[in-house]
Amino acid sequence: MTAKNLQELLDQTGDTVGMLRNSQIGTYIYPVVPSEFTNWRREQKAWRDTAVLFDQSHHMYNTWITGPDALKLISDTGINSVANFPVNMAKQFVPVSPEGGVIGDGILFHLSEDSYVFVGRAPVANWLEFQGSKGYDVEVRNDPRSSSRPYGNAVTRDVWRFQIQGPNAWPVIEKLHGGDLEQLKFFRMSEMNIGGEKVRTLRHGMAGAPGLEIWGPYESYEKVRDTILEAGAEFGIEPCGSRAYSSNTLESGWIPSPLPAIYTAEDLRAYREWLPATGYEATAALAGSFVSDKIEDYYLNPWELGYGSFVKFDHDFIGRDALEAIDPATQRRKVTLAWDDEDLTKVLGGIVSPAPGYQVFDLPNANYGSSNFDSVVDADGTVVGASLFTGYSANERKGLSLATVDPNVPIGAEVKVVWGEPDGGSKKSNVEPHEQFEVRAIVSPAPYAETARTEYQGGWRSASAS
Amino acid sequence: MTAKNLQELLDQTGDTVGMLRNSQIGTYIYPVVPSEFTNWRREQKAWRDTAVLFDQSHHMYNTWITGPDALKLISDTGINSVANFPVNMAKQFVPVSPEGGVIGDGILFHLSEDSYVFVGRAPVANWLEFQGSKGYDVEVRNDPRSSSRPYGNAVTRDVWRFQIQGPNAWPVIEKLHGGDLEQLKFFRMSEMNIGGEKVRTLRHGMAGAPGLEIWGPYESYEKVRDTILEAGAEFGIEPCGSRAYSSNTLESGWIPSPLPAIYTAEDLRAYREWLPATGYEATAALAGSFVSDKIEDYYLNPWELGYGSFVKFDHDFIGRDALEAIDPATQRRKVTLAWDDEDLTKVLGGIVSPAPGYQVFDLPNANYGSSNFDSVVDADGTVVGASLFTGYSANERKGLSLATVDPNVPIGAEVKVVWGEPDGGSKKSNVEPHEQFEVRAIVSPAPYAETARTEYQGGWRSASAS
Repeated sequence: MTAKNLQELLDQTGDTVGMLRNSQIGTYIYPVVPSEFTNWRREQKAWRDTAVLFDQSHHMYNTWITGPDALKLISDTGINSVANFPVNMAKQFVPVSPEGGVIGDGILFHLSEDSYVFVGRAPVANWLEFQGSKGYDVEVRNDPRSSSRPYGNAVTRDVWRFQIQGPNAWPVIEKLHGGDLEQLKFFRMSEMNIGGEKVRTLRHGMAGAPGLEIWGPYESYEKVRDTILEAGAEFGIEPCGSRAYSSNTLESGWIPSPLPAIYTAEDLRAYREWLPATGYEATAALAGSFVSDKIEDYYLNPWELGYGSFVKFDHDFIGRDALEAIDPATQRRKVTLAWDDEDLTKVLGGIVSPAPGYQVFDLPNANYGSSNFDSVVDADGTVVGASLFTGYSANERKGLSLATVDPNVPIGAEVKVVWGEPDGGSKKSNVEPHEQFEVRAIVSPAPYAETARTEYQGGWRSASAS
Repeated sequence: MTAKNLQELLDQTGDTVGMLRNSQIGTYIYPVVPSEFTNWRREQKAWRDTAVLFDQSHHMYNTWITGPDALKLISDTGINSVANFPVNMAKQFVPVSPEGGVIGDGILFHLSEDSYVFVGRAPVANWLEFQGSKGYDVEVRNDPRSSSRPYGNAVTRDVWRFQIQGPNAWPVIEKLHGGDLEQLKFFRMSEMNIGGEKVRTLRHGMAGAPGLEIWGPYESYEKVRDTILEAGAEFGIEPCGSRAYSSNTLESGWIPSPLPAIYTAEDLRAYREWLPATGYEATAALAGSFVSDKIEDYYLNPWELGYGSFVKFDHDFIGRDALEAIDPATQRRKVTLAWDDEDLTKVLGGIVSPAPGYQVFDLPNANYGSSNFDSVVDADGTVVGASLFTGYSANERKGLSLATVDPNVPIGAEVKVVWGEPDGGSKKSNVEPHEQFEVRAIVSPAPYAETARTEYQGGWRSASAS
């Protein structure tokens, strides 16, 4: 019998992990934006060396939240404090489940009195829409991401959304604006001129260089894009294609796609009955070497994702009790893993090694699921963390992954990422039969900085170390 | 001063090779069709093991040729004989320049009395349109390929064009048709039923298995596609994405993109004045390790591309005199080069080797120009051929390239492909600074078949061989 909602699907399947690990949805796609403009290495180098135009118009949900109870909805669902949240400020908004697992995160903009927009992936957008329907005096409207495979059909959105980033971003911005523009503090909003029109801005930045996120009505999408690229040409601006886009997070340290922790809490049964049997939560692909029967083992709490400082017990919110019971000091913490060059070369060469070879490491984004969960092991083979987002940076000339590791794993430790899935691989439509490969990696800070040789701790926790 | 046409551009530039080697157009794109449906390895395996749906709707020109002089235009411009060219037959049509260099090739369908369509790349489409305007009683109308980066704008064409290929193609076709369907001879046309409509067919095939190319009005694009995939599911049909698509030629042996030999002949001055300064011939990217001052050194004659058997002196045609002066026995011939696994692994690992590394070998299509021209050298470093189309086949688990080599280079010989451009690389927008790498490769038949160890001729023409 065809399931009518997510809960029915879970009940019928009886194996949430198996369902998600064998999803047929394929790799997460960054839609509509062309794959490459020049080439993905050059586009990566542009955000480090000159300036880049990121196009975020198509791969995120925009969740418009309006009404007298808007702030209450936000306060009731987010770990974040809203004590200081004036108009023209944004927050990295993180809701958790009653069990304390992160549902997702994204940027929440305070647009005007009682008016907000959340920009992020489906799980939080769905969660806000559902919670907003529970007696709040608020309208919550989702503008979903664009079709993954539009196949020549026209695509439209409420708004276009760009970021101008990189060391030359501010000169480009001031040239467009036609004069000095105050840089404001991080995540404060203002306005600027582009091509004779005022557009709204969010102060952003990469690697210490100030940048802006800007947005406006979709009708002016091409005009604004052309205007920025033309003005930025003298500063070396490059449009960033969808292929390079997601890899910027390997350098900045944001983990984009934790599994939404919504599959188990009894309190969320009504939510799961509201969610469709064909939506993100039902079809998302769970990928990687870590396999547990219990879907809860894939949940991540705010500390494990680097959001511990956002947790504020100055308000009531869903999941507060669960978070209060957690000792932050014992939680895993976010790090970057710097992959060993020799081992990565072997993985890359797996396409011509004796069959079946290894899970293909695609460039520059090597992830093969909506949420990725590779075991990080020590020299004894003990699991000491999870590698959650993997790829390659031409700026670092390194394979990198973002991970969360046990508190006693020091920076500089050598660990191994188990790359590829056990038992020849899952039945995901984007996975071909393969063997696993244990890739050596150095535990490094997030955001990434190359760990000096002196900090390298070879043989850390090695059984054979004397 | 902005050039008004190709000839003016060439006159201004004074360096045709330099202009094309430093093109800013980037990699040749296969537009609109999604990059991957499942994954490119699985899609490659489908054409070998089960069945595949190729979507050719967007990356080719359709040149509609109608009128009493249609056949005369074809006869005057093609090396092919038209002595036997009835309605419902197709030919692989090859025009050459007055100097005998191939302009391009593609499939020419005889649709009905005095009505033909040529399907192929821009150079031949442009050539037919120009020649058709020279006093023939004929209408030549081009429906160009789809935009490379439609960016969410709607795309439309005259016709959709699919191929159903692979060992299970015929069962899929007969299920769709609703009964037996005569297989006809290769390149003969007929009709079949799909979803209640008659569509026209061209008998095609891959690796000995019969298949069909089909086409119809673009309005029924999605309906026909869905109908085929639904009917073919039980036979393991897979839609092939744009990423895997072009690599099928590595196995079938067709060289898709020779440089059009139109830049030099004085007789073609009027043609070059007719061609725009911004079209394919002006902006195409010439890539690879072979560099000559003379653009003529990149021209290829029909024998070098494997089209010698098409040359028929039973009719007058542009370039006939030049071809008659050629001794076929002394011409280079088409082969497949099977790349050494160890060397390809080193090239792949170039992304983490000391800077600058090697030209990135993208998967599965590793070409980085509209036309690709890598030197093939013997053990002495003498150039003995050109490698023209490079990539990877998951069916063969091999890096492969299609090449043309001197007649005295035997099957089984070990040669080297010089991968990457000299002097750190050209200024093409899709080329980053790199070093060259000489990849060992075994000269093999085209279509590719793994050359037995017994045929291997290590040290062939080696200076050090005793």
